[in-house]
Amino acid sequence: GAGADNDLYINQAVVFIEDAIQYRSINHRVDSKSLWLYRWYYSRTCQWILSLTITVILALAFVEEPSSLTLTSDVRYRLPAWNPPCGLTESVELLCILVFLVDVSVKSYLIGWKEFWKNKWLMAYILTLIVSFADWIVSLSLFCKESVRIRRVLRPFFVLQNSSMMKKTLKSINSTLPEMASVLLLLAVHLSLFTMFAMLLFARTKDNQQDKEWVVYFRNLPDSLTSLLVLLTTANNPDVMIPAYSKNRAYSIFFILFTVLGNLFLMNLLTAIIYNQFRGYLLKSVQSSLFRRRLGIRAAFEVLSSLKETPASAQQSCVSAGALLQVLQKAEMDSHCKQAIVRSLKMCSCDQLSAAQFQKLFEELDKDAIKQHPPSPEYQSHFMQKMQFAFGHPYFGYLGNVVALANIISICVVLVMDADKQPSERDDFFLGAINCFFILYYLLEMLLKVLAMGLKRYLSYPSNRFDGLLTVILLILEIATFAVYGFPHPGWRPEFMGLLSLWDMVRLVNMLIVFRFLRIIPNMKFMALVVTTLLDLVKNLRAFAGILVVVFYAFAITGIMLFEGAVVPLGNTRRMSVCLANLKKSKLFLFLIFLIEAPFNIKKAVVLYFKEKKVISWHSAQAEVIYYLLYVLSVHLICRWAKIYFVAWWLISSVIWINLFVALLLENFIHKWDRRCQRESLSDIECQRTVELMFRDVLEEPTEEELMEKLHQHPHLHLCR
Amino acid sequence: GAGADNDLYINQAVVFIEDAIQYRSINHRVDSKSLWLYRWYYSRTCQWILSLTITVILALAFVEEPSSLTLTSDVRYRLPAWNPPCGLTESVELLCILVFLVDVSVKSYLIGWKEFWKNKWLMAYILTLIVSFADWIVSLSLFCKESVRIRRVLRPFFVLQNSSMMKKTLKSINSTLPEMASVLLLLAVHLSLFTMFAMLLFARTKDNQQDKEWVVYFRNLPDSLTSLLVLLTTANNPDVMIPAYSKNRAYSIFFILFTVLGNLFLMNLLTAIIYNQFRGYLLKSVQSSLFRRRLGIRAAFEVLSSLKETPASAQQSCVSAGALLQVLQKAEMDSHCKQAIVRSLKMCSCDQLSAAQFQKLFEELDKDAIKQHPPSPEYQSHFMQKMQFAFGHPYFGYLGNVVALANIISICVVLVMDADKQPSERDDFFLGAINCFFILYYLLEMLLKVLAMGLKRYLSYPSNRFDGLLTVILLILEIATFAVYGFPHPGWRPEFMGLLSLWDMVRLVNMLIVFRFLRIIPNMKFMALVVTTLLDLVKNLRAFAGILVVVFYAFAITGIMLFEGAVVPLGNTRRMSVCLANLKKSKLFLFLIFLIEAPFNIKKAVVLYFKEKKVISWHSAQAEVIYYLLYVLSVHLICRWAKIYFVAWWLISSVIWINLFVALLLENFIHKWDRRCQRESLSDIECQRTVELMFRDVLEEPTEEELMEKLHQHPHLHLCR
Repeated sequence: GAGADNDLYINQAVVFIEDAIQYRSINHRVDSKSLWLYRWYYSRTCQWILSLTITVILALAFVEEPSSLTLTSDVRYRLPAWNPPCGLTESVELLCILVFLVDVSVKSYLIGWKEFWKNKWLMAYILTLIVSFADWIVSLSLFCKESVRIRRVLRPFFVLQNSSMMKKTLKSINSTLPEMASVLLLLAVHLSLFTMFAMLLFARTKDNQQDKEWVVYFRNLPDSLTSLLVLLTTANNPDVMIPAYSKNRAYSIFFILFTVLGNLFLMNLLTAIIYNQFRGYLLKSVQSSLFRRRLGIRAAFEVLSSLKETPASAQQSCVSAGALLQVLQKAEMDSHCKQAIVRSLKMCSCDQLSAAQFQKLFEELDKDAIKQHPPSPEYQSHFMQKMQFAFGHPYFGYLGNVVALANIISICVVLVMDADKQPSERDDFFLGAINCFFILYYLLEMLLKVLAMGLKRYLSYPSNRFDGLLTVILLILEIATFAVYGFPHPGWRPEFMGLLSLWDMVRLVNMLIVFRFLRIIPNMKFMALVVTTLLDLVKNLRAFAGILVVVFYAFAITGIMLFEGAVVPLGNTRRMSVCLANLKKSKLFLFLIFLIEAPFNIKKAVVLYFKEKKVISWHSAQAEVIYYLLYVLSVHLICRWAKIYFVAWWLISSVIWINLFVALLLENFIHKWDRRCQRESLSDIECQRTVELMFRDVLEEPTEEELMEKLHQHPHLHLCR
Repeated sequence: GAGADNDLYINQAVVFIEDAIQYRSINHRVDSKSLWLYRWYYSRTCQWILSLTITVILALAFVEEPSSLTLTSDVRYRLPAWNPPCGLTESVELLCILVFLVDVSVKSYLIGWKEFWKNKWLMAYILTLIVSFADWIVSLSLFCKESVRIRRVLRPFFVLQNSSMMKKTLKSINSTLPEMASVLLLLAVHLSLFTMFAMLLFARTKDNQQDKEWVVYFRNLPDSLTSLLVLLTTANNPDVMIPAYSKNRAYSIFFILFTVLGNLFLMNLLTAIIYNQFRGYLLKSVQSSLFRRRLGIRAAFEVLSSLKETPASAQQSCVSAGALLQVLQKAEMDSHCKQAIVRSLKMCSCDQLSAAQFQKLFEELDKDAIKQHPPSPEYQSHFMQKMQFAFGHPYFGYLGNVVALANIISICVVLVMDADKQPSERDDFFLGAINCFFILYYLLEMLLKVLAMGLKRYLSYPSNRFDGLLTVILLILEIATFAVYGFPHPGWRPEFMGLLSLWDMVRLVNMLIVFRFLRIIPNMKFMALVVTTLLDLVKNLRAFAGILVVVFYAFAITGIMLFEGAVVPLGNTRRMSVCLANLKKSKLFLFLIFLIEAPFNIKKAVVLYFKEKKVISWHSAQAEVIYYLLYVLSVHLICRWAKIYFVAWWLISSVIWINLFVALLLENFIHKWDRRCQRESLSDIECQRTVELMFRDVLEEPTEEELMEKLHQHPHLHLCR
């Protein structure tokens, strides 16, 4: 009937408005049941469960065998890591897979059969689930003794497919790949030509004494290639050059030429190419978000205009204000925005809305959430008004900064004086007394500010919240210290009592005071600009960071699988340590080592080593020996068959990702810097700056024709006209 | 009389045209004698003498005491450096100072008294000369035994003041300094806050065994600051973090946070700021050059139009073609350009030229020097025509590339096979025979190409010139080898005869073959693009490179003065070697060490060391000991009072200069990349790409009003109207 139809239209409009708010695509089924399912799927609870599931399945790697996650990584003190019994992590995994199964079926159903076949991400999702499940069955049927677990490598895919931002970014990176490949090819040519030159230049001579160092760096093709590759990262910069230079100064020309061409020109060319590709990236992405929003609102208008109550006589299609109010009440959105839209709807006082009017109402969504600070209290007493003027004045805040600086300096002085003292000689009286005074001042400052501004206004400033919270924590710590150790007096010695020793307490207080000093940031213009740029960057970089996490995870799991059980008896350690010396310096190498350190089965290797060295008690060994051993082990792996793995790691994490980062930073910063003067006028009003707002004056509004064309292409919504 | 006046006008026009060609300012005296002096001063000979003088005075540092420039830097084999007698370098210096004195007086005279007082560079020039001369007198009166020579530090100034490009660039860098300073301040705050945190976090504990490594990195304030500063360069990246990580994995958060904030954010922010400042730099500089050119031409027009022979009746001022021809004959310019201008003047066939026509004639100067390759010879014989088609075809060139690649691969294979062989076991027969065959092929290729293209056309391609030259050199080397060592035969052993051993000959041939392989570059599109970008960059970077040389020189001389005689008896070597380990890894540090190594007076120190170690014969010592010693010595200096010196060096050379380089590369590359498609149409015509041409379509022509206003401001030229 007409009533049911009307209900459907209203529901469709509600969903389209919600799509517009969240920048979602509107290409989904629009019948009643699907709409209910759609709203349920995108409800906060459901999305939260999905995110939790993804987090859980990724976090499993930290408890699964062969993990060694303990507090300390020092093999001497480390307790054995907890090994869950077979079936525990597997059942958690099954649960996760089931949730993903529900996710993929709902998603596929909602976009419809036709669209499903076009969507490669969904197909890949289903494939991944099938492979994971098959692997899971194999795992369980072998009682968790299988050596290769493919499903672990596939896990990061679940992160990727759940974020539309990441998918978009990945597409963008993908389109840059051909040009990056060209530069990498150039780098490879550069490297190989210079390697041949090096081998010809630094050949073995009859005098073994003199070319000793050449044997180390240019003994054969793989060694030479590695030496120069590491030189490209500038990690072995002086070492590889010194022997040549000492023989003949002219040899340095070779190394300087190689470094200048490779490191200065080619590496920066990569930055230039990536920057050039990503220059328009942010703008394009914001533009497509805007299109989605306008499309959602237009779709809502179109379905509302086909409501039966609309007078058929009207030339133009239009929407009644009552229907819109009904939709607004049902739609989930920011209450601040909702109120603003209802208010302007009432102010307009027209019964029928045209498309343009309708669109205009929803422009409220694009606006900054301007936050007005609550007013200060008005005091009657003349004295109180004077107090309010004095302590509400910015100069009082500056005085607070000066006092904080004085506190920092006093801590610094004490640190310098105590640097060489034994812990038993230390006397905490001076610092205790000083800090006590300063914390009292901070408390006083806070109270006076609250008095002057009123509690609500005080709390409405983020800097005050930061300040107040730290002051309260400091006060509590100080009171706790006095309760346990008494008031400071000469010879106030650090002795252990309760949870923390006095020394630890004092250190904690000092660290908090240093941290509190950051409150000066908003007072310095340039610093504030830089900090807001950085915060913006963090927002815009979420997708990139997500992809980085995915790559990290995949590399770590691959590393675990590759290097499991690769520990071999120690042999020719000299060459290894050289190979190590080259590779361990590669910038982000260590971070990876942390992640794949687990499967090295250090203990076994250590026992082996001490058998060789005829040392029985391994508790008597020095830490150095163990580190040396750890290094030799990793080198063994690296130099054996994992050099390629690490080079790939270096290329992806260090070269490409860092260049992406630089490109985005340039894009963000230059845009911000140009608009700096404009912004300075807004002083008391704090804007929530988002990417959308940053580009607002450059964005193009989509035309009516584009919107309607897109609407008519909708696979499920069939508009009457 | 009128004739003399006319002569003066003609001469003025000639000088203005020459100014326009060289992009020089026209603000100089314009009377007859001054014009003669001006042309003499800017003649090739004079400018060449000036450049030579600057080179000589800079190069003096390599022979002056305390220099140690010898072939090898190894103290064991090094011959004592040549010490010129007192008065020799000093008299050369006096000569240079006299040349500079002439230079500054001519320059000051030419721009006139009024302008002189406004020109700070000239004043500084005179001041520098006075100080240098005073220092020279002191030097000579103390018989070269003085300890401080200020004039050496001042020498780079002569380079700066002689290049207008460098002065402009310096001004540009100067305007970026405030913003750079802000970021550096931020870096300093970041560093100091994290240092305090580190000292509080990694404090000394009672268990000496456990915090051993903390004593190394965070023992006191200067040590902590250094550790974190070096961490900012990522040089000690794994080392400083490992002990903390092994104690508690959570400590790594501190280091990761520090590196991400400092190295990833703040350092790249510096890149962004510098790029933002330099985005318009090239365009602006080209624009001002264009203005100078147009102004010079306009000035020439104005003086020519006041010639007496011009009919007074003409409404507009105009210039007779005859006068222009006279000027053109006298002016020094590229003959190609001159011919083109004369040709178009004759084609125009008008007797009187208006200002616009005059300006248009000289647009020839802005045009590319389009080089048409001479035609191939036309053969009568059918066979020869077929030959010409076959060997003139690009495929023949590709075949040559394939053969060159095959040669490279064969050399590579031999290198890999011979890598572990003793020099006495090596047999050069295989490589000798192979190379002989390949070189014959190269010769044949060259001859056939000359046959097909004719010698002139062959030589008109740079790639052919490169190819042919290397082929000829290879042929000569090969013939020389056969003459001395006979033809290759099994057991062709490397034995020493004549200048080079057979082994060295073969190596040289191989190196040339590898070098010859670079001929493939123009055949690969992307490679060709990158190479042309790099070449352009080198052109545009001359000014920056000049400034870098100036900075290098000043730093090296300051280093020599600071560290002279700073060698002290060796004491606590452990801490030094740690300090060294931190500092020696700083990227460009080593390059500087080369420059300031001289005054270390290594020998004295070595003797001292061996006395301490009770070793009498120092020829028996191993090379390692000496290197260790050299390191300890440098560390001594560094850790004593030169830390600041090296930090300044790092900031200027590594941080600021590299960022400038990246900014210019981005600017250049992005401009080039956008115009790539456009360029692909030009295949056979090679353009000489200059910065001016790159920006031509963006440049704005100066208006007539601007030009005339500037002309009326000329301090010496007083136009009639």
